[in-house]
Amino acid sequence: MSLVTLITDFGIKEGNVGVMKGVIWEIVPHVQIADISHLVSPQNIAEAALILARTAPYFPGGTIHVVVVDPGVGTQRRPLAVILGTQRFVLPDNGSITMVLERAEREGLPVLFFHLDQPKFWRKEISHVFHGRDIFAPVAGHLASGQPIEAMGQRIEDPIRLSLPQPRLDEDGWRGEVIHIDHFGNLSTNILFEHLGWKPGVTILLGGASISGLAHTFGEKPPGSLVALYGSNGNLIVCVVNGSAAVQLGAQVGDPVEVRFNP
Amino acid sequence: MSLVTLITDFGIKEGNVGVMKGVIWEIVPHVQIADISHLVSPQNIAEAALILARTAPYFPGGTIHVVVVDPGVGTQRRPLAVILGTQRFVLPDNGSITMVLERAEREGLPVLFFHLDQPKFWRKEISHVFHGRDIFAPVAGHLASGQPIEAMGQRIEDPIRLSLPQPRLDEDGWRGEVIHIDHFGNLSTNILFEHLGWKPGVTILLGGASISGLAHTFGEKPPGSLVALYGSNGNLIVCVVNGSAAVQLGAQVGDPVEVRFNP
Amino acid sequence: MSLVTLITDFGIKEGNVGVMKGVIWEIVPHVQIADISHLVSPQNIAEAALILARTAPYFPGGTIHVVVVDPGVGTQRRPLAVILGTQRFVLPDNGSITMVLERAEREGLPVLFFHLDQPKFWRKEISHVFHGRDIFAPVAGHLASGQPIEAMGQRIEDPIRLSLPQPRLDEDGWRGEVIHIDHFGNLSTNILFEHLGWKPGVTILLGGASISGLAHTFGEKPPGSLVALYGSNGNLIVCVVNGSAAVQLGAQVGDPVEVRFNP
Repeated sequence: MSLVTLITDFGIKEGNVGVMKGVIWEIVPHVQIADISHLVSPQNIAEAALILARTAPYFPGGTIHVVVVDPGVGTQRRPLAVILGTQRFVLPDNGSITMVLERAEREGLPVLFFHLDQPKFWRKEISHVFHGRDIFAPVAGHLASGQPIEAMGQRIEDPIRLSLPQPRLDEDGWRGEVIHIDHFGNLSTNILFEHLGWKPGVTILLGGASISGLAHTFGEKPPGSLVALYGSNGNLIVCVVNGSAAVQLGAQVGDPVEVRFNP
Repeated sequence: MSLVTLITDFGIKEGNVGVMKGVIWEIVPHVQIADISHLVSPQNIAEAALILARTAPYFPGGTIHVVVVDPGVGTQRRPLAVILGTQRFVLPDNGSITMVLERAEREGLPVLFFHLDQPKFWRKEISHVFHGRDIFAPVAGHLASGQPIEAMGQRIEDPIRLSLPQPRLDEDGWRGEVIHIDHFGNLSTNILFEHLGWKPGVTILLGGASISGLAHTFGEKPPGSLVALYGSNGNLIVCVVNGSAAVQLGAQVGDPVEVRFNP
Repeated sequence: MSLVTLITDFGIKEGNVGVMKGVIWEIVPHVQIADISHLVSPQNIAEAALILARTAPYFPGGTIHVVVVDPGVGTQRRPLAVILGTQRFVLPDNGSITMVLERAEREGLPVLFFHLDQPKFWRKEISHVFHGRDIFAPVAGHLASGQPIEAMGQRIEDPIRLSLPQPRLDEDGWRGEVIHIDHFGNLSTNILFEHLGWKPGVTILLGGASISGLAHTFGEKPPGSLVALYGSNGNLIVCVVNGSAAVQLGAQVGDPVEVRFNP
């Protein structure tokens, strides 16, 4: 039996996430369901795409990832089921698949998109405002119960993709930006280990601060120090040891970051 | 094996919810437990009743819903187990059952109340302050393991009910109030689809704003627009597309809302 | 099959907790995992120790408790697996075990510590910043799947312990401090039922307020009253009925509390 994961912007107070679990378990009792995040910023598709990309790779093959950050609910936007390698995704066609899709393409994995157009796999009554309950959860349940994805909708080839900010290399170094700020106030950038590696002598510039060199981990410097290191997904991150870089630097998503080769 | 759901006002930091799961799993290993909400406002029984009513219908028959918003813990208020149709409820006798009970009565479902007065289904030591752990969780565990509800307490006929605000109809239209504000800032009212349907030409008045006509979904209007539509449970809701009506209108639970027939 | 519980300071937005579940379920499908708390204050090891001590006793024998509040991640601090009686613990060697350990020692339970030094029970690549994913979750998974703890590392005898504040008794009474403030604003102290019992005529002094006598439960006094009673773990707590003692008294963790015998 498959696992199911859930990413939404529903928050955790109203019980809408619980409703989706009830719908799934009615179809496929006892399947394990993991809450990944329900605190995606409202309607923030790019954030959902990032959280999905940071978490999906750590789940077993066959897992079904459901992502419902869906400002277009009730409009003509298509509901999708997607196969990327051994994993499956159920989500609106609004770009939230982008980061996992681009990685799958880089890795040469099988990629298949299906437009969910077969109402027999949905709840009987479909609201205009809660397709998480009425379409995405029941489809995930039927997938988890072993129904074939091919029966649930037509193949398509043109899913919507987000245009994600890419870092740029010039002779002085890399220029990127802050793409996420985590619970600890660590600043995650779109400059990756594969871009920079352990190049010596670099200086990292962000929010008026200048950091010399790359650290391996937080504990190398005393509490309160600014450090730049690689996060657990290989992104260059800027942190304050036992503190919040977001607070100390007043940084926000989208802020520019530079890595200079010859400071 | 049954499912168990949990609604509390315990928050999610201290681990009290986890304690309830440990107690349940000690009695009935491997039962699936769904967190519905642990962010009910402290001691807010009416809010618990509303969240229960919005979520319970989407769970399979046999599910056991545990609700612990319990300002009367340790006093003479009775602990209850309740059958409404095919679903079961375990909760203090303080009115949190009201909305699901009234719906069950409207639908003519079987309704049975039991005063939990048999300590052999409880933990051995009963604190004065945490009956969620000491009475409600073990009772839910024993129910989930197949013990008969009739053995757990005497039938009663006089559960406490909340007096919930009802909308009023006069010749100008419906007058109701805001009964819930969700994570997105959408304002849910006690005026229902069954009251109003798709009556044309209506004007919705709330917090100084006037909205002409009913929308079908958020995406019909541009971001930032105020819209009135039906929420996923059939309540009339007032929303800002991709924004917060609560913030834009400064609205609160209890604020009056009017639907005028001939503006 | 064992249960697994999780305590972290990761928050619930980024999905790092979900990643740990994916890693565990890849090793041992279908094991039940209970979130205890992911809102431990960042790097607050003492708070993690307290939440662990308040929750672990309510889980069945064999449960595996994973605690990742880990400011020393990536340094030389040791990863540990611990047996205390019938329960097991997987956590960094930073003192988060202290409170459950001291209780186990008082109760004369078997106590065994293992330094996790066998990488074959870890993920293949170990980051410097996320041992929850790379070491602690896979070790928990292998333990849950029945692998022997003895294979995972060498016995050690010198785990790090926190120095926890102890209450003092003099002829006037007990002097302790606030050790936790819960979701409701109740103030939990380190003075215990076993210290004080139901001694008559006591006065409790905290934050400039004076409370005469001990109550049995919240509902004995009218809403808004300050009361002192025993919490569900036997700690003396100071509360406002249906309100927040933390707000009313402006109290913080570490504030002194006195129980005077002859006021």
